[in-house]
Amino acid sequence: MFSRVARSARNTPSLPRASRALQARQFSSLDLIPDEPAGPSVVTQKIPGPKGLAASKEIDAFQDPRTHVIVPNYEESKGNYIVDADGNVILDVFAQISSIGIGYNVPALLELGKTDEFIKAALNRPALGSFPPVQWAEWLRTGLLTVQPKGLDQLITTLCGSSANETAFKCSFMAYRQRERGSPDAPFTKEEMDSCMDNQSPGAPQLSVLSFKSGFHGRLFGSLSATRSKAIHKVDIPAFDWPSAPFPALKYPLQEHVKENEAEEKRCLEEYEKILIESKSARPVAAVIIEPILSEGGDKHASPAFFRSLRLIAKKHGAFFIVDEVQTGVGATGTFWAHEKWGLQEGEEPDFVTFSKKMQAAGVFHKKETRPNAPYRNYNTWMGDPMRALQARKMIDIIRQHNLVSHTASTGASLASSFKSLFASSAAAGKVSNFRGEGDGTYLAWDLATPAMRDSFVGKMRNHGILIGGCGEQTVRLRPMLTFGEKHAEILVGTAEKVLKEL
Amino acid sequence: MFSRVARSARNTPSLPRASRALQARQFSSLDLIPDEPAGPSVVTQKIPGPKGLAASKEIDAFQDPRTHVIVPNYEESKGNYIVDADGNVILDVFAQISSIGIGYNVPALLELGKTDEFIKAALNRPALGSFPPVQWAEWLRTGLLTVQPKGLDQLITTLCGSSANETAFKCSFMAYRQRERGSPDAPFTKEEMDSCMDNQSPGAPQLSVLSFKSGFHGRLFGSLSATRSKAIHKVDIPAFDWPSAPFPALKYPLQEHVKENEAEEKRCLEEYEKILIESKSARPVAAVIIEPILSEGGDKHASPAFFRSLRLIAKKHGAFFIVDEVQTGVGATGTFWAHEKWGLQEGEEPDFVTFSKKMQAAGVFHKKETRPNAPYRNYNTWMGDPMRALQARKMIDIIRQHNLVSHTASTGASLASSFKSLFASSAAAGKVSNFRGEGDGTYLAWDLATPAMRDSFVGKMRNHGILIGGCGEQTVRLRPMLTFGEKHAEILVGTAEKVLKEL
Repeated sequence: MFSRVARSARNTPSLPRASRALQARQFSSLDLIPDEPAGPSVVTQKIPGPKGLAASKEIDAFQDPRTHVIVPNYEESKGNYIVDADGNVILDVFAQISSIGIGYNVPALLELGKTDEFIKAALNRPALGSFPPVQWAEWLRTGLLTVQPKGLDQLITTLCGSSANETAFKCSFMAYRQRERGSPDAPFTKEEMDSCMDNQSPGAPQLSVLSFKSGFHGRLFGSLSATRSKAIHKVDIPAFDWPSAPFPALKYPLQEHVKENEAEEKRCLEEYEKILIESKSARPVAAVIIEPILSEGGDKHASPAFFRSLRLIAKKHGAFFIVDEVQTGVGATGTFWAHEKWGLQEGEEPDFVTFSKKMQAAGVFHKKETRPNAPYRNYNTWMGDPMRALQARKMIDIIRQHNLVSHTASTGASLASSFKSLFASSAAAGKVSNFRGEGDGTYLAWDLATPAMRDSFVGKMRNHGILIGGCGEQTVRLRPMLTFGEKHAEILVGTAEKVLKEL
Repeated sequence: MFSRVARSARNTPSLPRASRALQARQFSSLDLIPDEPAGPSVVTQKIPGPKGLAASKEIDAFQDPRTHVIVPNYEESKGNYIVDADGNVILDVFAQISSIGIGYNVPALLELGKTDEFIKAALNRPALGSFPPVQWAEWLRTGLLTVQPKGLDQLITTLCGSSANETAFKCSFMAYRQRERGSPDAPFTKEEMDSCMDNQSPGAPQLSVLSFKSGFHGRLFGSLSATRSKAIHKVDIPAFDWPSAPFPALKYPLQEHVKENEAEEKRCLEEYEKILIESKSARPVAAVIIEPILSEGGDKHASPAFFRSLRLIAKKHGAFFIVDEVQTGVGATGTFWAHEKWGLQEGEEPDFVTFSKKMQAAGVFHKKETRPNAPYRNYNTWMGDPMRALQARKMIDIIRQHNLVSHTASTGASLASSFKSLFASSAAAGKVSNFRGEGDGTYLAWDLATPAMRDSFVGKMRNHGILIGGCGEQTVRLRPMLTFGEKHAEILVGTAEKVLKEL
């Protein structure tokens, strides 16, 4: 998908398949970041060290520091290595929160930063909906639009993943009501125009977005209503009375539990369809939103067949289908978009695909039929940010040039194999379970025996110079950058072994 | 306020008052933008011209162009002048959507863009809540925190005004429920933790935000529920059942209608308090949100006494008080924050002040008592953007160095006087009414006789080389940058006279 669109859009000659594969095998992060450190270097007893703690304390005077992990020195960080306030050099396999695409201070990206084009785009931020720069079409056509998911040739840019999802919600609600009215030209009634000003139906309709338990879609009021990750994310915040459906609790490794997993998926699909039907009488579902891998919620997987069914059942009941690729997008799963693996037929593509994080630019790919029927219905001051679109364009160029998606697929395959060996060894006995994500690039995860053991694992890894993230209750998730390769994998697996023995 | 905080924070010596005033009088945009054009230059019959229309058509392939006004060439734009795709040089008194602070391509800002510090901040975007840069405290202390509104020494950074307002809502809801529980340490009940996951009370409480008719607070799901500007902004989008109170419909000029305006304000205050009381039984009001001048809704003003009463009545009924300075903030009203003019007593400051637009950085100033009682309750991936904080810091420095707030106050005063003469002349007879904003810097507005005449005025002004904005039903609003001065004012008033005659 990625290379197909890339070629047609940029008109670059295709490489023979074998040569592409060779190139992918040979990529080293040193190609892009010549001065990347050779390994972690820990100079304080614990991480964060005294300078990091002092920096957090300084921030505490005006901003909540309780969620700080480390206080980095971004000027010194390079490639896959983040340097903290104390000078610790740390292998970063969390990539902020899965939000750094190809590394810190990648020279080719810094070069972009020095261009007149970038500086002027950054410091003359336009209101894109009304005053788009004269280069806007070109910037998108040679950048974000080259990675448009199959079938989705429209793009609304936004500032973050939460607002990308809420934009997809709004477009769904508008298109749903428009369909009910029978025509794009059907006028709003006076009752609708009046009642919406009081937040009452029919103008503010009793419609809903269906999401899945453990799903995460952001923390603004609409997106948070669809988020079902953790109570601490939701408690005390008013929410829309929207339904949630069960997400399959599969057994891992998937290939060893095919029958029971199929049954579990079937059970969830039935429950999902039941909710769609039951909602019709009270608060019909205008859109269904799902992540290809439920990430914040604990790296929960399901089969391509399950997702294909979700899509078809949504369509059957008149709901738009939104794929939230804010975390899964941009190559980490070994395909540019994770949902490419679902094998959706032509005409069955998602209605919306949202992105942010690693892409740096954020937004919604969609179809022209969900463009609102009147201007100013989807509108705000900035409508995205050209400098982030330029950053994304450059990053996409680099990803393409170095075949970083296939590089990540192959690195992930060999990394998964190393982890499987480690987790089958005595070091992991009774501690690690549910290793998952094989076949999804470096998007790997596993559970520790308890939440406390997970936290201890993450903390000890950090003290050994590896920054790694958790998710769900007791899961460790890998989210390295696309330049992560064999040599980083060796350090990662070796350190994990050491830490597992210490647990 | 601005200079007081500025001095105490940066420790720069204060200038004698007279000399400050002199400096303010003498400021010319050429001090900052030596090559700013001397006036508009229109090269096409209409604006947009053929190249602009072609650029919009190109964008139409993938993005809605119906709201385009012009397609600018940002590289060529300078100071108060925006250049479009056709080479028209246009005096911009709308400043995108009131979102450019001091001008296009101001050399001192472009210098910032070339620094290593800025480039690395832009291209290594951190997840600020967990991995803030080691310079974060310094960047804020010497930048955004120097303009903190009185009494509000805490700052949550966000990406846009809508999310700033929603952050203030969330903090209000959390603090409200915490107060109900009696202590910051009171644990959530199991029922709360469970029910919030299903979007049901008590975990997702039946609480509300009260806003005012014609108010605008953004277009995400929470902020849109508080927005009451226009039906086209709200129709078809589900909304929370939150109350709205009437905003005074004052008669202008204010000083000629003191008595009846007082009565109108009293009526609105009584209705407001009634709604606060009545809401208690169904959906108690946790927060009240208001703009100091209702801007999108048509530049509606009220007296300082009215706002002081709003604040006190909110407090009396246990609601937090949010001042939305997204559009009014950053000097355009002749004080750095518009609410400085209210004369609030110590201890009666707003609980939250939100900002974005001209500041480029966005966020919420608040008090430490509304910091959530546990980590991760207010959290997201980016939590703001350091490069925008650096941009804001530089802009604040420039504003301070050139006394641009007092410059804007005095420019606004003389501009208002010119407009009053014009609007009293035969050119405006039967066409212009309700001139308003005198005393509020360049934040001036007036009504045309009909919505169509307003649109015609705005269109003709553009064809004469002046980009000016509308708001409300038939209002024209001025939103020039802080470098707008006498010579721009002359061109503006002269052109307005010409256009009024043509109408």
